[in-house]
Amino acid sequence: MFRPVCTRAARQLTSSTSRAAVQQQQRRHASTPAAFDWKDPLGASNLYTEDELAIAETAESYCQERMLPRVLDAYRDEHYDPKILEEMGELGLLGATIKGYGCAGVSSVASGLITRAVERVDSGYRSGMSVQSSLAMGGIEEFGTEELKERLLPKLASGKSIGCFGLTEPNHGSDPGSMETVAKPHPSKKGYYSLSGSKTWITNSPIADVLLVWAKLESTGKIRGFVVERELCPPGTLETPAIKNKNGLRASLTGMIQMDECPVPEGNMFPEVEGLRGPFSCLNSARYGIAWGTMGALEDAIARAREYALERKQFKGNPIAKYQLVQKKLADATTDAAYGILAAYQVGRLKDEGKAAPEMISMIKRQNCDRALINTRNLQEIFGGNAVSDEYHIGRHVANLFVTQTYEGQSDIHSLILGRAITGLQAFV
Amino acid sequence: MFRPVCTRAARQLTSSTSRAAVQQQQRRHASTPAAFDWKDPLGASNLYTEDELAIAETAESYCQERMLPRVLDAYRDEHYDPKILEEMGELGLLGATIKGYGCAGVSSVASGLITRAVERVDSGYRSGMSVQSSLAMGGIEEFGTEELKERLLPKLASGKSIGCFGLTEPNHGSDPGSMETVAKPHPSKKGYYSLSGSKTWITNSPIADVLLVWAKLESTGKIRGFVVERELCPPGTLETPAIKNKNGLRASLTGMIQMDECPVPEGNMFPEVEGLRGPFSCLNSARYGIAWGTMGALEDAIARAREYALERKQFKGNPIAKYQLVQKKLADATTDAAYGILAAYQVGRLKDEGKAAPEMISMIKRQNCDRALINTRNLQEIFGGNAVSDEYHIGRHVANLFVTQTYEGQSDIHSLILGRAITGLQAFV
Amino acid sequence: MFRPVCTRAARQLTSSTSRAAVQQQQRRHASTPAAFDWKDPLGASNLYTEDELAIAETAESYCQERMLPRVLDAYRDEHYDPKILEEMGELGLLGATIKGYGCAGVSSVASGLITRAVERVDSGYRSGMSVQSSLAMGGIEEFGTEELKERLLPKLASGKSIGCFGLTEPNHGSDPGSMETVAKPHPSKKGYYSLSGSKTWITNSPIADVLLVWAKLESTGKIRGFVVERELCPPGTLETPAIKNKNGLRASLTGMIQMDECPVPEGNMFPEVEGLRGPFSCLNSARYGIAWGTMGALEDAIARAREYALERKQFKGNPIAKYQLVQKKLADATTDAAYGILAAYQVGRLKDEGKAAPEMISMIKRQNCDRALINTRNLQEIFGGNAVSDEYHIGRHVANLFVTQTYEGQSDIHSLILGRAITGLQAFV
Amino acid sequence: MFRPVCTRAARQLTSSTSRAAVQQQQRRHASTPAAFDWKDPLGASNLYTEDELAIAETAESYCQERMLPRVLDAYRDEHYDPKILEEMGELGLLGATIKGYGCAGVSSVASGLITRAVERVDSGYRSGMSVQSSLAMGGIEEFGTEELKERLLPKLASGKSIGCFGLTEPNHGSDPGSMETVAKPHPSKKGYYSLSGSKTWITNSPIADVLLVWAKLESTGKIRGFVVERELCPPGTLETPAIKNKNGLRASLTGMIQMDECPVPEGNMFPEVEGLRGPFSCLNSARYGIAWGTMGALEDAIARAREYALERKQFKGNPIAKYQLVQKKLADATTDAAYGILAAYQVGRLKDEGKAAPEMISMIKRQNCDRALINTRNLQEIFGGNAVSDEYHIGRHVANLFVTQTYEGQSDIHSLILGRAITGLQAFV
Repeated sequence: MFRPVCTRAARQLTSSTSRAAVQQQQRRHASTPAAFDWKDPLGASNLYTEDELAIAETAESYCQERMLPRVLDAYRDEHYDPKILEEMGELGLLGATIKGYGCAGVSSVASGLITRAVERVDSGYRSGMSVQSSLAMGGIEEFGTEELKERLLPKLASGKSIGCFGLTEPNHGSDPGSMETVAKPHPSKKGYYSLSGSKTWITNSPIADVLLVWAKLESTGKIRGFVVERELCPPGTLETPAIKNKNGLRASLTGMIQMDECPVPEGNMFPEVEGLRGPFSCLNSARYGIAWGTMGALEDAIARAREYALERKQFKGNPIAKYQLVQKKLADATTDAAYGILAAYQVGRLKDEGKAAPEMISMIKRQNCDRALINTRNLQEIFGGNAVSDEYHIGRHVANLFVTQTYEGQSDIHSLILGRAITGLQAFV
Repeated sequence: MFRPVCTRAARQLTSSTSRAAVQQQQRRHASTPAAFDWKDPLGASNLYTEDELAIAETAESYCQERMLPRVLDAYRDEHYDPKILEEMGELGLLGATIKGYGCAGVSSVASGLITRAVERVDSGYRSGMSVQSSLAMGGIEEFGTEELKERLLPKLASGKSIGCFGLTEPNHGSDPGSMETVAKPHPSKKGYYSLSGSKTWITNSPIADVLLVWAKLESTGKIRGFVVERELCPPGTLETPAIKNKNGLRASLTGMIQMDECPVPEGNMFPEVEGLRGPFSCLNSARYGIAWGTMGALEDAIARAREYALERKQFKGNPIAKYQLVQKKLADATTDAAYGILAAYQVGRLKDEGKAAPEMISMIKRQNCDRALINTRNLQEIFGGNAVSDEYHIGRHVANLFVTQTYEGQSDIHSLILGRAITGLQAFV
Repeated sequence: MFRPVCTRAARQLTSSTSRAAVQQQQRRHASTPAAFDWKDPLGASNLYTEDELAIAETAESYCQERMLPRVLDAYRDEHYDPKILEEMGELGLLGATIKGYGCAGVSSVASGLITRAVERVDSGYRSGMSVQSSLAMGGIEEFGTEELKERLLPKLASGKSIGCFGLTEPNHGSDPGSMETVAKPHPSKKGYYSLSGSKTWITNSPIADVLLVWAKLESTGKIRGFVVERELCPPGTLETPAIKNKNGLRASLTGMIQMDECPVPEGNMFPEVEGLRGPFSCLNSARYGIAWGTMGALEDAIARAREYALERKQFKGNPIAKYQLVQKKLADATTDAAYGILAAYQVGRLKDEGKAAPEMISMIKRQNCDRALINTRNLQEIFGGNAVSDEYHIGRHVANLFVTQTYEGQSDIHSLILGRAITGLQAFV
Repeated sequence: MFRPVCTRAARQLTSSTSRAAVQQQQRRHASTPAAFDWKDPLGASNLYTEDELAIAETAESYCQERMLPRVLDAYRDEHYDPKILEEMGELGLLGATIKGYGCAGVSSVASGLITRAVERVDSGYRSGMSVQSSLAMGGIEEFGTEELKERLLPKLASGKSIGCFGLTEPNHGSDPGSMETVAKPHPSKKGYYSLSGSKTWITNSPIADVLLVWAKLESTGKIRGFVVERELCPPGTLETPAIKNKNGLRASLTGMIQMDECPVPEGNMFPEVEGLRGPFSCLNSARYGIAWGTMGALEDAIARAREYALERKQFKGNPIAKYQLVQKKLADATTDAAYGILAAYQVGRLKDEGKAAPEMISMIKRQNCDRALINTRNLQEIFGGNAVSDEYHIGRHVANLFVTQTYEGQSDIHSLILGRAITGLQAFV
């Protein structure tokens, strides 16, 4: 139905894709140069390559046609359909920037456009994909042995195997350096490490086959990365209970990782990387994706608020879109979306040139999450009392975006990371 | 267990009440005049009468001991336990400012303190009570015939009969003057009106026995108030389906009122009041209550955020309460709570003196909802990723408070009401 | 011309006072209980005693009739007319809460109303008065010997002698405990201390006769208070150069205090108070006054913005007061002014009952300065390009209010003071 | 001394330029790809051509070395030195995007970089240049006859002739379509129009030689553009009094244009353009420049605040740059500066490709002015009481930036322009 992005052919697909997405694309290419398009207010589409536009089109079509119809029920029931990852895998959307190992090898900007398409539907769906792509696959690709890559990446790329990333612990959120999970030579199984400890708020953990877990190697006290394969874990050594009753990201699956002398082959430890550099590098890629994704959620909120404001009539039959107070909210949100896209684009290009400093990613992760959240909250007001009904989708975006602001570096933490880079002084207490 | 507030004796109760509430009270009365109490930062407790303090104590004890344990499940399942109204009725908390008819006849400030105690637990619980007290009972008391009052108020005061208030229609939220529900002489039942039309977002409607419904009298085109008694309605003339899948106020019950030639006795029409003056007067009382209630929710958010910040340790074992960025959020929230309480108090006193202009109530409803929402959102950031778990309660307050900002006059609408009062010009488009 | 507030007779004055002020007063007393008055939105005038209302009337009349006409030139030229203090002295407005010593002995609320009247004209004029009343006179009254009080307070109360308060040093703004000014026994003059050091940002210093200076007593290392009388200082021991080219508070006089072995009689050292308790107690009173004063400036900004918006017509001849975006700014500002007044009032009453914690004053100083500044900036936008002309007064208020936010405890510092009181943890780095 | 930007040679200049600017440049080119530079947080310098970088360097050097030393006195005395325009003319900085007529013919991005360099020193200096370049020269270039261009543009490009732009009238700020200035055939001078009417808030008008004035042609009621040459105006027909006592942009010269039957040759009327399209096209270019310029002012504020925070020590000798509350202000400001630059860059490139919609320019003008203002105000707080001294420059930026927010489309007006483009509905009352 959808063509994978890893072939150039993707951009020829037409009849099978969403008509709306195609038309939007055509409008972008139309020859009225000085026309303003509220969906692309600062003309970012001029910056993408044809490949990138084709990839975006595939991703948008899939998300609007296949994901969107599932999201309300998923959110209500806190249910995540793992088939989604398989579908994405078929289209080449997983680990898309990785070259080889069955991955598409696209640009960072293309990867950002995919992420935006997914989060336009739901931040939880995007979280599931980010973890698979940036954290699990990205980590293995960057730090794993060739054996691990060849064995695990193709399965993960197809979405038939599911990955997760275990860094955060119950008592150590913003400060992973204090982690308590420990790895030591396994007391009984030769050639294995034994891992013990707890991780929490781990997206995908309850259904993950491949768990990238960070632990302190007892002998050195240094943090190392371990690829835990569920099928190799004897009963009782690995539990991944789900965390339920969340008030955001309910369409993604979140859980814990509890390891009790869990045996992991020595070859599954990342050979070189030590300390926080490893997990931070993975997080960097994920954060880059969040900067794109949250713009998608904001854009969806804008489109829905605009449509509601045009249809909702009050006081003498005027659509409320005619209210100054409503127009200001739309103008503010549209501006922040346009700015956020340009910033994410710029960092994407620099990333591929090896020029993206981690603080750049802190900056766009923080700002885009913050502005997406603030504006979506403002737009929510346009819906008045109706906002409380989940069928308008706006409340879901608001609840989701709050979570994006807190995970992978809470907004204040990133402001201190930036503050340190600006002043040379650290202000973590 | 709890003593009703309508007897003076209430303030002597001790052993059976919450220890915490009593201790808090004692601290307030202690003779360290210049000590700062973050729970009462500007010393508002100095302003209450002894009766009012006793009533507040009863209400707080009941809410903390009996309501709080139920709220998580109620919110998860969108379930409202109607027994709560009965329990409140036993304590004299319903329609508490009404004199006679089995009501407590307390001051507006005392009523505000009750409201604050309930919303400290949950805005949905407070909504259920507000509708019963201010909208249904208040409307009947202000505009109903003596016969209606004597017949209905005692049952409503006991909580054994449940009331609701039908003003908003699907297409007319901020602009009730355009309502489409119509009343005309019943075609077949003599001495009856026939009501047809739809109301939506009606708290309590699915379980209401007494529905105060506003409709346009066909013969005059003027809005009139009708007391619809469910037990008098033949099958098929009154339906009150619940609205589910809400993303806020899930512990309250919300529904529609659908009337199809529903017969209502002529004596159940309010005899005198015509036009929007009737519903607006009821709303005024409810809005006054919201100004108090939201401060309760905000205070609970402060207490929970403070406790979390003191217990949560990051970076070298420091509690995050030591962070400047955390302290600022707490300082901001505490300030707005203190200011909001003083303003609500002032309007309460003026209300009992007949000096409270409706715009005063617009002002405190708008400001207290806005500030409660903004600050609770800021406090939510303190919880980081943990905020997503409903067991920290903060996400629930945030979601609820957004709804309070939109109902009974969305914030922007109140700003235009104030703007009109300030400038003499109306800016509703 | 104006009657002094220290006699009860003040409230009978009529013919000689500002007509506008009197009318405003009458409107307040009128018997239309439920009317909304944008100048007193939450009916605070119901809370004042008749004495307080009379004092406010006197102060408002004087300020509007005598001060206002001078302020534009004063601000342009950075010129402060010391006659203003004399005029205020004649009316009993200086050190007004002090009992005896030629002072009026009014309530803290009355004093707040005076402050508000003065700052309604200009924050710089209010600063000049605050320093005289709260810092210089208040300090001497609270900590000075009876001899000092009897000798200095009457002259200061009359405004014929001018006081200032030297605490802040060039390198120690928010942290006065690190001050470097030192006092030691005078090497040559027996019975005298010798003071050396520099103070900066000292309102009134260039024209002050009586300089209350805080210095570390060399022998103990403890901070002590000294009353430096300019006429007793030999040439070269005391210089008080003015600081010019300020971008705010230009109608007040600011300078340094430079002391080089300046001799001060031993009896001029405050006998008991040691450490920061002394200056902080004085600052507390001044901060309390600022909380009232800034509300006056905000109220003036509201009145001017409202008038401008009603007169300024754009787009088909509509006054811009009809714009939703303009009305929202007015509604926000009016709300914050109303809330701020109630909070200042409450702390005033508690102050007279000995129940005002210092943190309460931090709270109202901070919040009222912040909200006055934010709202005045928003109101400034209503004036569009015309705001740049000083004849609209709004730019002056904005510039002044920024300074009030920074002095006597910058806003962030007060948030940390509050944060410490709320959490029990200090976050000053 | 400085080399003109119109020759490629500009980028070779070294010894004579500011060492700091050169070093900054070198740092940008250095091969540490992933280093974060707080002065260019998102690596925008990667986007400029070598020509553009060279032009920026020339402009920055000139501004820092020659303009900056003059600004304090200019601002204090409301004095504008017209020699500045001559100096800029010598360097090719005036009308720099115009091709031919003695102009440099650089890209829109290069022009933006010049504007940023100037406003880094002072928004008033930038205003003087913007009016000369975008409004007067730009208008003549776009709409004037070839004769006018050849005669006037070279003189204006050299800065020896000074231009201004007369659109705004005393009663018509945001709504120029209602202008009252009128043009009709001159009653006595054949071949001349006669212009009568008043313009106000006209930058440069008191010293302008060439006044581009918009007036309604009486015969058609349509707005037309007229080039008024002062030397051709008989005494009494043209007055251009200065407006003094401004509280912002004091280093620029502002005045009125008063015309009383002022004769203008028929050939000085723009031949084709009618209605608001003419002035709006000029304003569009000016607004584009403001979007760049305000980022310069913000960047200067960041640099000064950062330096102050690193040098200012409080509480145990810690630089206040270590405060979380200070770091957050710096992080916020730096982020908005980085985002604003990228947005201005994007619109600049689209402008040169003919793809820049006017609403894009509304968006970046509004957002960059708003964010520059908000952040500069926040940074001002870092300076505490010292901010009041003009030697720290921060107060000047704050006062200037407020004016930039109001002129050439006040922020709210631009939000309604955007709102109209987003919704298709106009909300101007």
